Amino acid sequence: MERHFDENLQALKYHLMKMSAMAEVMIADAIKAVVERNETVIPGVYQREEQVNHMQVEIDETCLKLIALHQPAAGDLRFILGAAKANAELERLADESINIIQRAQSLMKEPALKPFEIIPEMAMIARGMVRDSLHSFVNRNVDLAREVLLRDDRLDDLKDSIAQELTEYMTRDSAAVSRALNLLLISRYLERIGDHATNISEITIFVVEGRDVRHHADQKVEG
Amino acid sequence: MERHFDENLQALKYHLMKMSAMAEVMIADAIKAVVERNETVIPGVYQREEQVNHMQVEIDETCLKLIALHQPAAGDLRFILGAAKANAELERLADESINIIQRAQSLMKEPALKPFEIIPEMAMIARGMVRDSLHSFVNRNVDLAREVLLRDDRLDDLKDSIAQELTEYMTRDSAAVSRALNLLLISRYLERIGDHATNISEITIFVVEGRDVRHHADQKVEG
Repeated sequence: MERHFDENLQALKYHLMKMSAMAEVMIADAIKAVVERNETVIPGVYQREEQVNHMQVEIDETCLKLIALHQPAAGDLRFILGAAKANAELERLADESINIIQRAQSLMKEPALKPFEIIPEMAMIARGMVRDSLHSFVNRNVDLAREVLLRDDRLDDLKDSIAQELTEYMTRDSAAVSRALNLLLISRYLERIGDHATNISEITIFVVEGRDVRHHADQKVEG
Repeated sequence: MERHFDENLQALKYHLMKMSAMAEVMIADAIKAVVERNETVIPGVYQREEQVNHMQVEIDETCLKLIALHQPAAGDLRFILGAAKANAELERLADESINIIQRAQSLMKEPALKPFEIIPEMAMIARGMVRDSLHSFVNRNVDLAREVLLRDDRLDDLKDSIAQELTEYMTRDSAAVSRALNLLLISRYLERIGDHATNISEITIFVVEGRDVRHHADQKVEG
């Protein structure tokens, strides 16, 4: 029984890592659609979203079974509940890639606006946050989790900075309004991805230290 | 033991209902700040957000204790895991009120733009969705849950409609860009609240029917 539980727990971690890796590819491809105006990546993002949806259902069922069949001790129970929550965060952040793709499709219908380098920079930070927050969770690494929380501030600053730049752009050039708006929304979706990674990191600290840091500041609120 | 479990389960439901009622007041007050330019409601929204944060932590601990102490049967276990997930949704949707308040504060610094009646209409729908999704969850009422899912489509339509109107507004009048942008973001926050209520309704159906309807369509993606 004991080994069976450990094996199932390992499988749970493996599936979460796989889902996280898939979400990372989705973000990268969605941003490729935005920056390179590359349409060929689009179908793959939609396909991966369906796979992620299936994985989410599977992972929830695994969590339920692990608890029902093995009646795990307090620490493991906390980890499994954390896994169910991290699972929901991963699915949501993968969904943001679809939001980005839809804005990219709208952008491709008009001539390109000047490149905004903040967008790929934000995407790189957000992807790193997703990867490292999930690593911190499965390895119960609170140092890494805390480090991810710090990176969210950088993402928020970049979001504010591009919002200001795009607002000025829209004010100056009315022909650019709808394109600038699409870019602004894309920056918000990237910031949401960072928020979900932040949530996963906070779940890690909650699971490992039994302390709740989720409301350590107002980091989760967009502002 | 049996009665003790039922009492704790009742308390869990009661706390979720209380949290939902508090979130509803937060949404109403945040929209009052937007529509009536009423500053006096603002401190109350921030105070309630802190209360909601505390409630979230308490509810999670209650869920853990219920599982660890009572080793509930499959149906109850599913309900408790659902409660932990609904708990997270409630906290997130309450947070959206803070995002709305921050946009309202920014709007109050400039002369009022013409009233956009879609905003209070969206707020009314979103509040009803929050209330009814939580009712559907605690009463395991799948009919009500499904009815909430339908209302989300209306909210999405209103969001698209105001986005189009505000984009045209910004294109015509460059002096209105930053105000129109704030209103557009507010409509997005309201739509997010509807998404969270949708998630709670889907959790209800999952808990009651053991079926996963979370990926019944692309409703969760903003588009």
